[in-house]
Amino acid sequence: MTRSVYADHAAATRLRPEALAAMIPFLESDFGNPLSVHSFGDVPREALERAREQVAQLIGASPAEIYFTASGSEANNAAIKGVALMNRKKGNHIVVSAIEHQSVLNPVATLEKLGFEVTQVAVDRLGTVTADAVAQAMRDDTVLVSIMLANNEIGTIEPVHEIARVVHQRDVIFHSDAVAAVGKVPVDVNQLGVDMLSLAGNQFYGPVGSGALFIRRGVRVTPLIEGGVQEKGRRAGTENIPAIVGLGVAAELSRWEIAVNAERLTTMRDHLIARLTTEIDNVILTGHPTQRLPHHASVCVEFVEGEAMLLMLNMYGIAASSGSTCTSKALKASHVLTALGIDIAVAQGSLVFTLGRDNTLEDVDYIADKLPPIVERLRAMSPLFPGNMREQ
Amino acid sequence: MTRSVYADHAAATRLRPEALAAMIPFLESDFGNPLSVHSFGDVPREALERAREQVAQLIGASPAEIYFTASGSEANNAAIKGVALMNRKKGNHIVVSAIEHQSVLNPVATLEKLGFEVTQVAVDRLGTVTADAVAQAMRDDTVLVSIMLANNEIGTIEPVHEIARVVHQRDVIFHSDAVAAVGKVPVDVNQLGVDMLSLAGNQFYGPVGSGALFIRRGVRVTPLIEGGVQEKGRRAGTENIPAIVGLGVAAELSRWEIAVNAERLTTMRDHLIARLTTEIDNVILTGHPTQRLPHHASVCVEFVEGEAMLLMLNMYGIAASSGSTCTSKALKASHVLTALGIDIAVAQGSLVFTLGRDNTLEDVDYIADKLPPIVERLRAMSPLFPGNMREQ
Repeated sequence: MTRSVYADHAAATRLRPEALAAMIPFLESDFGNPLSVHSFGDVPREALERAREQVAQLIGASPAEIYFTASGSEANNAAIKGVALMNRKKGNHIVVSAIEHQSVLNPVATLEKLGFEVTQVAVDRLGTVTADAVAQAMRDDTVLVSIMLANNEIGTIEPVHEIARVVHQRDVIFHSDAVAAVGKVPVDVNQLGVDMLSLAGNQFYGPVGSGALFIRRGVRVTPLIEGGVQEKGRRAGTENIPAIVGLGVAAELSRWEIAVNAERLTTMRDHLIARLTTEIDNVILTGHPTQRLPHHASVCVEFVEGEAMLLMLNMYGIAASSGSTCTSKALKASHVLTALGIDIAVAQGSLVFTLGRDNTLEDVDYIADKLPPIVERLRAMSPLFPGNMREQ
Repeated sequence: MTRSVYADHAAATRLRPEALAAMIPFLESDFGNPLSVHSFGDVPREALERAREQVAQLIGASPAEIYFTASGSEANNAAIKGVALMNRKKGNHIVVSAIEHQSVLNPVATLEKLGFEVTQVAVDRLGTVTADAVAQAMRDDTVLVSIMLANNEIGTIEPVHEIARVVHQRDVIFHSDAVAAVGKVPVDVNQLGVDMLSLAGNQFYGPVGSGALFIRRGVRVTPLIEGGVQEKGRRAGTENIPAIVGLGVAAELSRWEIAVNAERLTTMRDHLIARLTTEIDNVILTGHPTQRLPHHASVCVEFVEGEAMLLMLNMYGIAASSGSTCTSKALKASHVLTALGIDIAVAQGSLVFTLGRDNTLEDVDYIADKLPPIVERLRAMSPLFPGNMREQ
């Protein structure tokens, strides 16, 4: 029987049983609307505020600064568009990095059509955004800077604390997409100095369809989803209590486990990177070697297509990704990898392994055992491989 | 022991067991991302498309025209802002009715700040929007008309088919907020002639956190939540498969049951309305007496505050609403009731009973038995009541 090794935790995580157990009563019987005056609203309303505390504690925020969303993408859209539209009379310039997630880059592209100007800050070969580069990109009319805490595709952790300092020297609002980071590394909004921060439950064993946006007290936004008074008028729509409760439990447990998990995952990650980069020829690590997410190993394998490797890995029961999940169906070169200065041909051979709490060192060895022969077989068939070309 | 009568199905419905049963495998084990190349994405991806068919069938649409959202409010925001921003070079005028849900009215208010102009069409005393009134409100620069299929607060069903005809004579896009109607009355997007239509699963025993927007083939929108390629790029964020699967099952079952339920609910509704309006003095039915949602009974009781009645009904185990759920915590007069020409003082005595599949005629009689003495007691204490004023 084929072994099953799930190493695609950036794409989705399995909902943890404690979170599901906490959700079940709200799916089965405590279905009331928190806004209701009658008793059916009481238990859901209390659960909502309890989850708000749990999420706030995970990132060192005050509960009043947590706004629930249905995804990390929604949180990013709400932050970017919300600040831009609220401040459009103050200025119309936005700074982002070149390797932001599409849920940051596409909103700023839409804002450009509405008259905003956007500067994309370049990154170095390891994917690092420097505070200097951000400082140079800012202008007198800059109203928002958005730099991610960690990149989902290459694992690099950005010096957000230093970036926050230069952003605040200009009294500009600073948002950080922390979807890939929260639950993997300790995150404290005050230590980081961010004004807004996005997170998603499905990245740390909470339910899909749960997310949150931290908005520091005093920061004003135009709501993305307007209507009722839920979330203090900043996010309309009946609160998804089951998902929010699951997010809260996942946040609380993640907070307790994060140090132990990070250490365990780092060991596995480094073992995987070491084996892949030594046992396969013409392979490069993408992203930073040490300033990277503890569960994240990403490489580019030359002369092979990422998708072909994924399909063969899948035959061995190994689940992994190539480039950003959200665009993996779109077979174009990743904007993140090209921003690192990686050749487009090389970027086609992108592979991303994101480990999780159920993975073992045996899983990692299984991946590292299976991949080299897969690469060899694919290269033998590939016209791109130099050896094969010579034969023609 | 106190009887429990839940008559607030517009605020929330209990998730039906068949929908929950279908969701459980996706909460427990089939957690994969539909975009994944590996096998973990296969079952979720198939479930996603199956649910899309189920929702499409409920409203007579093609599956390719269904876009999943996390709520009816999100669907309304996506429709309104999406059409406006896409067509802003063509024109900047929007027509809505005065009794639309806040998730329509607040987005158009924000669009006004961005340079759009909005005309609110008045309604008659029964809450009906006429096609003539819409025709008169339209201009050469109108790019969108949004009129709800049924009002959540007064139950009136609008002549959307007739309105669609006059809107299309001008070649303008027509959206209908059908959140309160879908699952209660048969809805067919082609018979109605709408270009876009919003629905929410939690209104018909599907999961909270599920919704959909119908976008007719050929209609272009700027996405509200941008990022990944999910939902053909029109709604980014990892698909909430458990919620979507639950929505699909609820849609399918609702389609089979709708005729039987509507008949049963209409009988209970008319019995409730008849008893309340005859057994309490100074009470008026709000909304249309016959062109109304089959489960919906709404009244205004003079000289009493709605909230006070809700609290006393709650002591008898009866759950109901006053005005729109989403604003029931904001103690202002409902914009819907004032649009009907109801005096602000009278509008304070608003009560909305929305019946559901678990309710019986006994429940209805229980409500009708309990409310008159509650009204009597409250009026005895109220300085607003004419008899009491005379004593001063």
